[in-house]
Amino acid sequence: MALTIGVDVGGTKIAAGVVDEDGHIVENLLRPTPADSPDDVADTIAEAVRELAGRHDVEALGLGAAGFVDETRSIMRFAPNLAWREEPLQKKLAERTGLPVVVENDANAMAWGEYRFGAGRGESHVVCVTVGTGIGSGIVIQGALYRGRWGMGAEMGHMQVVPEGRLCGCGNLGCWEQYASGNALVHEARRLAAAEPERAGRMLELAGGSVSDLSGEHVTQAAREGDEAALSAFTSLADWLGQGLADVAAILDPGCFILGGGVSRAADLWVDQTRAAFLRALTAREHRPHPEIRVAELGAAAGLVGAADLARHP
Amino acid sequence: MALTIGVDVGGTKIAAGVVDEDGHIVENLLRPTPADSPDDVADTIAEAVRELAGRHDVEALGLGAAGFVDETRSIMRFAPNLAWREEPLQKKLAERTGLPVVVENDANAMAWGEYRFGAGRGESHVVCVTVGTGIGSGIVIQGALYRGRWGMGAEMGHMQVVPEGRLCGCGNLGCWEQYASGNALVHEARRLAAAEPERAGRMLELAGGSVSDLSGEHVTQAAREGDEAALSAFTSLADWLGQGLADVAAILDPGCFILGGGVSRAADLWVDQTRAAFLRALTAREHRPHPEIRVAELGAAAGLVGAADLARHP
Amino acid sequence: MALTIGVDVGGTKIAAGVVDEDGHIVENLLRPTPADSPDDVADTIAEAVRELAGRHDVEALGLGAAGFVDETRSIMRFAPNLAWREEPLQKKLAERTGLPVVVENDANAMAWGEYRFGAGRGESHVVCVTVGTGIGSGIVIQGALYRGRWGMGAEMGHMQVVPEGRLCGCGNLGCWEQYASGNALVHEARRLAAAEPERAGRMLELAGGSVSDLSGEHVTQAAREGDEAALSAFTSLADWLGQGLADVAAILDPGCFILGGGVSRAADLWVDQTRAAFLRALTAREHRPHPEIRVAELGAAAGLVGAADLARHP
Amino acid sequence: MALTIGVDVGGTKIAAGVVDEDGHIVENLLRPTPADSPDDVADTIAEAVRELAGRHDVEALGLGAAGFVDETRSIMRFAPNLAWREEPLQKKLAERTGLPVVVENDANAMAWGEYRFGAGRGESHVVCVTVGTGIGSGIVIQGALYRGRWGMGAEMGHMQVVPEGRLCGCGNLGCWEQYASGNALVHEARRLAAAEPERAGRMLELAGGSVSDLSGEHVTQAAREGDEAALSAFTSLADWLGQGLADVAAILDPGCFILGGGVSRAADLWVDQTRAAFLRALTAREHRPHPEIRVAELGAAAGLVGAADLARHP
Repeated sequence: MALTIGVDVGGTKIAAGVVDEDGHIVENLLRPTPADSPDDVADTIAEAVRELAGRHDVEALGLGAAGFVDETRSIMRFAPNLAWREEPLQKKLAERTGLPVVVENDANAMAWGEYRFGAGRGESHVVCVTVGTGIGSGIVIQGALYRGRWGMGAEMGHMQVVPEGRLCGCGNLGCWEQYASGNALVHEARRLAAAEPERAGRMLELAGGSVSDLSGEHVTQAAREGDEAALSAFTSLADWLGQGLADVAAILDPGCFILGGGVSRAADLWVDQTRAAFLRALTAREHRPHPEIRVAELGAAAGLVGAADLARHP
Repeated sequence: MALTIGVDVGGTKIAAGVVDEDGHIVENLLRPTPADSPDDVADTIAEAVRELAGRHDVEALGLGAAGFVDETRSIMRFAPNLAWREEPLQKKLAERTGLPVVVENDANAMAWGEYRFGAGRGESHVVCVTVGTGIGSGIVIQGALYRGRWGMGAEMGHMQVVPEGRLCGCGNLGCWEQYASGNALVHEARRLAAAEPERAGRMLELAGGSVSDLSGEHVTQAAREGDEAALSAFTSLADWLGQGLADVAAILDPGCFILGGGVSRAADLWVDQTRAAFLRALTAREHRPHPEIRVAELGAAAGLVGAADLARHP
Repeated sequence: MALTIGVDVGGTKIAAGVVDEDGHIVENLLRPTPADSPDDVADTIAEAVRELAGRHDVEALGLGAAGFVDETRSIMRFAPNLAWREEPLQKKLAERTGLPVVVENDANAMAWGEYRFGAGRGESHVVCVTVGTGIGSGIVIQGALYRGRWGMGAEMGHMQVVPEGRLCGCGNLGCWEQYASGNALVHEARRLAAAEPERAGRMLELAGGSVSDLSGEHVTQAAREGDEAALSAFTSLADWLGQGLADVAAILDPGCFILGGGVSRAADLWVDQTRAAFLRALTAREHRPHPEIRVAELGAAAGLVGAADLARHP
Repeated sequence: MALTIGVDVGGTKIAAGVVDEDGHIVENLLRPTPADSPDDVADTIAEAVRELAGRHDVEALGLGAAGFVDETRSIMRFAPNLAWREEPLQKKLAERTGLPVVVENDANAMAWGEYRFGAGRGESHVVCVTVGTGIGSGIVIQGALYRGRWGMGAEMGHMQVVPEGRLCGCGNLGCWEQYASGNALVHEARRLAAAEPERAGRMLELAGGSVSDLSGEHVTQAAREGDEAALSAFTSLADWLGQGLADVAAILDPGCFILGGGVSRAADLWVDQTRAAFLRALTAREHRPHPEIRVAELGAAAGLVGAADLARHP
């Protein structure tokens, strides 16, 4: 059976894995992401790939990383966290591994993974939104990843949802990811803990009394234990997610949404409220079928598996 | 050469025309839209079509109307201005005309017309936004109209751009069309004329001194003559258009935008400012090619021509 | 004991009453407000006053009406609902009644009434907010009504709370009274009833199935019976009231707020939530005493009683 | 002639001066603000005061510092930058200097200084807004500083102007000072320089090419030299200032506004636009006198002079 390698390049770790045609991971490796030099990152990837290729008969390599990939899926134009600018990744990795290479945005790879083997199986119009430190997204339309004219599509975390709103890392004000991401959750939780400590008792206890040490894990655990401020922070996240999904539905009318990313591991805390907020905000809700809002099924492996499969369908 | 008929059903007029394969209108008719009864409208359309079909050898019929058309392009689910609810238009018109029929949303038909024969020729990823009383839109991706999973796609006038903003006809608050349509232009002009009459002298003069009689034509003419309040109203329109297009670009990354609809006839007054506002709001503007923002070329005929051509490519 | 007459001029009714030094109404009359002519209104007021003065030994006349009263409390500069523009009310009424006259804004008169005889007794810094069709307000500082430099103070219903928000009757966008008044309550309830009829069953039933017939009374009754949409409309009202009061507190730091007006008759439905929203939004809430938020005590008579008492303390 | 001492306690410097009854500074001293310990600050103040009192026959001491001062003007409840919490400053300084002491919020002291000897002379209703790193404010009504019920009044920098807007140091979202202060100016300038470097050429040049090194001085100089992005940043500041002043005018109807603080040194760049934005946003602008918007006259000394004079009018 034909195997391919998928690589998921994160800011701190590189995950590489051999994946079969059914999306199963046959073997995988984890390497720390080298700091600073783009070339070091490419070398580390190539080494991991060669190691895996030495033990398995693989046909191609798919790579997913946070950043803007050009329309030919070969050049990483701009990767905020990895110092890549107009980096010819496909060429470099093909030279160093001898494999055909497809480069893809990480959220696109995840969306593809979920579409092929996860929560999006059998759907024709899928929008996948990953709620992590920021918001990533991928769109699958009738069996193909939608990449836009120049590969810059599906960056819906940067729709403006609040005019004159919070400053985004992209330089604009009021982007969706400033209100509906994991970072937004933690910022809102910290804000509430500072402003209304009496409602944030458990959350602050978990953080050792320090607002600035409050993490997503603390917020999640405190919410499970009924901490009012933590629940408020999740309510805010859910409401903003629902509103933004409704905005996307006004444009794309997908058959389903899939919510992934780190924050989706606690989806039981907020997904019902997201569904309710989505329906309230969906235009013409009385006159249309409603897309399902599903939680991702592949977890952290979605990007790796998706990238491997994209290498098979270049 | 194969001919088809296109029909553009508006709230007050029905335009029907015979169109050739190059998008030229061979003959066209205009009928008033019957009030009230959905059946009367279908009858009027059928009569006009039969009249044209009697004089030309036509192969198919394409119909565009404001409303939500189902995914099989046969049923008008909901047409706010025409009293159609779950109306089986395709069946009715096929029975009455003997032609194969395609039903389409009017903005989708316009988008297709512009893509095939107008400002979008040769582009692979086109978003057409019609700025009329409301905002309509259509999306063409790699030679196909994008309709969404259930035919409800491309309703981007109903993205929320202002939380808790102005009430929209759709029942939501803060929809884009409440800020960037022809109606929004007139409302803003009236508001300014009432609040700052000293800056709105020419506009008020044209309207006979009556704020409530102020029309889009008055605003346009006054702006051309330098009326400050009229220019402010166009500035507001242009800025909101630019912001909304940037939101759409974050999702779709089109090769070009086409701006049509009644307000685009005065596009020289506002399109440059829309372009500037778009670029300021486009995420990652430094790291991507910029889609062109073009003005529609087919004018009021775009919908009819597009519908006729869609009948040819069902 | 010295008596004075207070008059409360509303859009549909004129209430006149003889009031003693303790704020008790000795006798009162009700007259329909004549339409159209400013002089007819003055005549009707004068007649009612003369009738009362014929039966009681009164010393002065105080008049409250919706509108902007000048800094000398004699001229009604602009009364939106009563066709008064730069109307010399003090002079006209003094001539027709032979009494010394004080003219005052109606919300100022109500605030004074509540301060002297109602919920504000004994306080030194009182802000009274009347939640009726719009939002009126009055400020009492250390025993004196605060009127501003030109008598235009205490129009806090026209603070902007949403940039680019809903159009206000005053010609601006996003005024507080568009979000936190009785009209706002009804508009939100109608919007929800149209958009989510399944959550608004009881409200629609009370309104005979017609969204446009939905009144404040329907919303109130439905909320008491647990209608979800009605409760949502009250939640929105309460949240916006709390936010606006916090904005006012950032400027005025009052000892207490008093909430009056027609909507306050159902204050049990929303005042606790207003208090909570206020505290969440109050700047430096951890480092300051919190003003109480009280419900008005004098009901519909507050304006009449306050105007009568202001005539005693000119 | 009776002399008093005024002290202006800033985050980095303490200014103390002997002031006569006409607001002239007879002698002044500057000391660095000791870090960390509240007691060290009190000691440094006391030393400077004793030194001045040794050379002049002074009657009282007035102190202005950023923070919330209680209603008796003796206790600093909360001073964000100076580690004071419930600090009995009046008592401490009276003990160490032997003088009667009045403690005041620094913006209140500035407002008083401008009212008595600067741009507010002869006015009865004055609102002073200091545009510095944040926004401070002071209110003078008929010859008396307005302090609110508990001394917490005149914190109008913390009105919310954008729902869900930028995070403020006070823990709330969307406070006015996040949009209309010197910090806001610099943040907007940096944002524009990062996002649209081609429009920010001069500004970036002045900052040595580094967005994060961009200072208020750079923005000001670049704006004077026509840098587009710098001018945009000032436009944003001016528009938000005008809107906020209009919100305040809806409540207080002052006879004049005085704009002070560090950013007012470049007021020629933005005050006309602030006036225009104010008038556009002023409710009922057609029916009321318009307060003047003036620039402060006393410069950096306003706080010291105001504090000294407040000691004379306790």
